[in-house]
Amino acid sequence: MERVITISREFGSGGRELGVKLAKSLGIPFYDKELIAMAAEESDLSEEDFLHYDERIPAMQDPMDRHLYTPFSSIYEVPMSDQIFLAQSRVIRKLAEQGPCVIVGRCADMVLEDSVNLFIYAKMKDRLNRMNALDTGIAPEMMETQIRDIDRKRKDYYQYYTGNEWGKAQNYHLCVESGLVGVEGCLKAVLAYLELMK
Amino acid sequence: MERVITISREFGSGGRELGVKLAKSLGIPFYDKELIAMAAEESDLSEEDFLHYDERIPAMQDPMDRHLYTPFSSIYEVPMSDQIFLAQSRVIRKLAEQGPCVIVGRCADMVLEDSVNLFIYAKMKDRLNRMNALDTGIAPEMMETQIRDIDRKRKDYYQYYTGNEWGKAQNYHLCVESGLVGVEGCLKAVLAYLELMK
Repeated sequence: MERVITISREFGSGGRELGVKLAKSLGIPFYDKELIAMAAEESDLSEEDFLHYDERIPAMQDPMDRHLYTPFSSIYEVPMSDQIFLAQSRVIRKLAEQGPCVIVGRCADMVLEDSVNLFIYAKMKDRLNRMNALDTGIAPEMMETQIRDIDRKRKDYYQYYTGNEWGKAQNYHLCVESGLVGVEGCLKAVLAYLELMK
Repeated sequence: MERVITISREFGSGGRELGVKLAKSLGIPFYDKELIAMAAEESDLSEEDFLHYDERIPAMQDPMDRHLYTPFSSIYEVPMSDQIFLAQSRVIRKLAEQGPCVIVGRCADMVLEDSVNLFIYAKMKDRLNRMNALDTGIAPEMMETQIRDIDRKRKDYYQYYTGNEWGKAQNYHLCVESGLVGVEGCLKAVLAYLELMK
């Protein structure tokens, strides 16, 4: 495994779990939320801003939001979410230079040119079951709204920054539905697929 | 393996080859073009009509085409391609009742309700290499036009009869890109995925 593996994921389908297990199986580093602190460190922006704008697009920002522009911003200023995206992209490229790793989300599949790209998803009922079994602090009756909201943001974010369609099979090398076989089944499929990689 | 496996495929990506190998590995029957003769036998239509309308939609029919309607057709008559689709769907359901098998194309994923659905695809350059290495009788300089033409027909056909988006990952359980790992790599991934099926 010489190449970076990226994972795009529907919320609740097990993308992070697949990433952690895959990285462990291959003996390579894993990055998800870790990218936030690294990109904050790499830029002049605060980690708080990164948390606020992580995987969000400018159109979703509140125009009254104090984070949108600095006090003396002009129309030429780069919106905060774009700055965050660019800082994360620089970190993703730096990590890729250091060697193979697994990166979850943040359009890493489009930031890098030579990565192996995975997409994981599942039917709503399976995602609800999976999330409600975890200790998320979200009430079961609110879970579906939460899932749809985060998915919409991820989709908008991906399409805004890449111009590509989120979840279109041809954008990825392997797409796995986790409801039928669990994250473990997806992991087995990914490892078998990678085995014959040229 | 108790369930029918369906394969949707981009032209030239190796869908038929994957299906043949998968059926052999699992020891179950395989159906692709075979469906044409079976559906012809099952209906009052000729095999010639089936060959002509296989995986095509009414809008693509030539209005002057003698096949479109019978000589005494009225506006209430069912277009030939719809009749073909319905006859093939009946055969697909009958086959599914007989036990697990592999079915390629013909919207089998949407005709059946409990099938495991695969999608196989590849980048144009890999599909060109693959097809030009085969004895297709199509000149290499015409191959790309041919591939795009057949893909467009398959996409229109799928969307017309199912209302779903062809190639959208969430419509399938597993989507495999064959350029990176070959049909053999895709086969390994599919078999590993199926192993953990509930």
